[in-house]
Amino acid sequence: MTGNQSTDSGDDRIVGGAPLDAPRLVRNQGVTGPLGFRGAGITAGIKVSGKPDLALVFNEGPDYAAAGVFTRNQVKAAPVLWSQQVLTTGRLRAVILNSGGANACTGPGGFQDAHATAEAVAEALSNWGTETGAVEVAVCSTGLIGDRLPMDKVLAGVTEIVHEMAGGLSGGLDAAHAIMTTDTVPKQAALHHPQGWNVGGMGKGAGMMAPSLATMLVVLTTDARATPEQLDTALRRATVRTFDRLDIDGSTSTNDTVLLLSSGASQIPVEQADLDAAVLAVCDDLAAQMMADAEGVTKRVTITVNGARTEDDAIAVARTVARDSLVKTALFGSDPNWGRVLAAVGISPVTIEADRIAVSFNGSAVCVDGTGVSGARDVDLSGTDIAVVVDLGLGDASGMVRTTDLSHAYVEENSAYSS
Amino acid sequence: MTGNQSTDSGDDRIVGGAPLDAPRLVRNQGVTGPLGFRGAGITAGIKVSGKPDLALVFNEGPDYAAAGVFTRNQVKAAPVLWSQQVLTTGRLRAVILNSGGANACTGPGGFQDAHATAEAVAEALSNWGTETGAVEVAVCSTGLIGDRLPMDKVLAGVTEIVHEMAGGLSGGLDAAHAIMTTDTVPKQAALHHPQGWNVGGMGKGAGMMAPSLATMLVVLTTDARATPEQLDTALRRATVRTFDRLDIDGSTSTNDTVLLLSSGASQIPVEQADLDAAVLAVCDDLAAQMMADAEGVTKRVTITVNGARTEDDAIAVARTVARDSLVKTALFGSDPNWGRVLAAVGISPVTIEADRIAVSFNGSAVCVDGTGVSGARDVDLSGTDIAVVVDLGLGDASGMVRTTDLSHAYVEENSAYSS
Repeated sequence: MTGNQSTDSGDDRIVGGAPLDAPRLVRNQGVTGPLGFRGAGITAGIKVSGKPDLALVFNEGPDYAAAGVFTRNQVKAAPVLWSQQVLTTGRLRAVILNSGGANACTGPGGFQDAHATAEAVAEALSNWGTETGAVEVAVCSTGLIGDRLPMDKVLAGVTEIVHEMAGGLSGGLDAAHAIMTTDTVPKQAALHHPQGWNVGGMGKGAGMMAPSLATMLVVLTTDARATPEQLDTALRRATVRTFDRLDIDGSTSTNDTVLLLSSGASQIPVEQADLDAAVLAVCDDLAAQMMADAEGVTKRVTITVNGARTEDDAIAVARTVARDSLVKTALFGSDPNWGRVLAAVGISPVTIEADRIAVSFNGSAVCVDGTGVSGARDVDLSGTDIAVVVDLGLGDASGMVRTTDLSHAYVEENSAYSS
Repeated sequence: MTGNQSTDSGDDRIVGGAPLDAPRLVRNQGVTGPLGFRGAGITAGIKVSGKPDLALVFNEGPDYAAAGVFTRNQVKAAPVLWSQQVLTTGRLRAVILNSGGANACTGPGGFQDAHATAEAVAEALSNWGTETGAVEVAVCSTGLIGDRLPMDKVLAGVTEIVHEMAGGLSGGLDAAHAIMTTDTVPKQAALHHPQGWNVGGMGKGAGMMAPSLATMLVVLTTDARATPEQLDTALRRATVRTFDRLDIDGSTSTNDTVLLLSSGASQIPVEQADLDAAVLAVCDDLAAQMMADAEGVTKRVTITVNGARTEDDAIAVARTVARDSLVKTALFGSDPNWGRVLAAVGISPVTIEADRIAVSFNGSAVCVDGTGVSGARDVDLSGTDIAVVVDLGLGDASGMVRTTDLSHAYVEENSAYSS
């Protein structure tokens, strides 16, 4: 599997053959990879399926610095409103996450439910021996929009989950399992820095991948010593280049949340640039795992735009191509229909010159100067990975967006979605 | 079928039970409904299927006023560039249209092909007895992007088609057949005004329906006496409210063209308001026919947004909902998943207040004040027509966009598209 994107969460390996003194990325560890964190995942009965549906990430300290990035959807779920509010302190002791219900569009009652959940976690942790306030607890939810959560089950689950917390790798993996909805595999990544500190993370998200984030809950942890400002900077720099550029269907969830917590347990202060790079690497790997597991995916597609005037232009063009249903259905059919790529480029919000555009599929030129290349219809796209490269011929800037094909399975899954 | 949207082109009926002195809209007539027009459609061999693929609309005069509206895609097909150029004169004698190839992204050679086709039509018409110049001939093409047309077949077909021109209804119907690609039925409409003049039209388009037009070729004719300026005004007012608001998948063709030709053969001068209303009625009916025949459609969906600050805002929100893959797959599944509608409203480019939004499906309220209504999950959407109404609670403006569901058949058709 070396060098390939793998969805095997037990695949402990060096990405890209890094030397021993370079940061090492593995996928068999997640939020409990760094020191000072415990995780848990249980079945609280929120999902009717009986699958795990409640997860907890607990920061044992000594630091409690935290930062968060949230959905840009103007319709924000109650847990997003709650977590945005508590994050203004730059401090978190715990994150409670549930699948089986988004608690979105649930009105003031839904916000009270999110608040009550945080209160219950704080009380349970205080009873367990760690004095905690509700304002130190972030809440994340994912699932169907519009229904109130079964709060009796959520609150009973909170009491139980605190006793299940484990510091080893199993705690993080259990948590990663419990946040899955239509995900088929748990998603974890951890980076071990040669300086002795670590960054770990878990994520869920396989649909509603979006211009901003995705229905995507991600919790990242680090044992490096870092201020809330350092965490915030690293998190924003990483998300804009990873989850923001994962665009499955142009939809943006009401619940997207990415959190980064620091325990400082390694006692090692970290340079901003090192932290940025480590958080970026973990986010990038989680984004690749999400793309590979996106709903109904049969192709993993990267849209790279070169020759743009600015990076923003490159991303805007790449996003337009990545969202185009006609491009995506053609790729599902392994059809090198480059004309649809040009038509999509032409409706992007960027001024282009049609007769300067070049396109390649998997390294084979299919269009030069806006017209087809001989043999373009014969390019073989039958494999799983498709790299589309568009050169606008207008400048030196580049950008890449990850997407997928539009398949029968996508239609099936989303026309029958119910959990 | 009375009162229903019909795709039966032979269905001659009064839409909406209009009184006898009101304009009468029928679907068994098209471009040859008005006086002074001949039409033809033949098999020239451009399509490998052997189906009709070349159409001609000929204006016998005495007037030759014309106007056109074209794709807003920055990648414009050669025939669009040609027709935009000749339309600057405000005068057309003929329109030649082919299916079986878009002649888009074909470089300078493709433009020469469009020019040569117009020259051939002009020569054939001149030989037939009507002195015509190439600059009086518009060219429209539809089909796969990127391939040059088989010009030997096109030019031979042009010579033949001039001899096939018929002034009766059959000529218009033959033309409507010959421009079909993935359309399953020809699309015609004609309006008879009680003042004694007429407007007729034909259209094709069943995919790549778009923010601007659709892959959509439409030719409209009238025997009213009208200046090119009157025609241009009526055409722009009509397209912005009809084809512009038909949004199947957010894609915009490189070839979209809507033309309006006047023969003046009724000798009746027309008031702008009357012409506007007649052209709007014909365009609206053709747009409804296109929606009903859109690729892989199992549901006909209207998204109406009320309570917006401006009509532009209403349309922007409606368009965002109409393009949302998760909304469209839910509708395919007859799932009253109003949460996805709210999530789509929240990512529209309009500032909204989440807790003021109300949503209804087919007249049943499913969401009020941004939260679900009891029984919302039980609304029956199993029928073919679904009316989604969103009230933003912000103002008095409204707007409506037509769309469809996202079905297995859409994926199938577009992953295997080849003509």
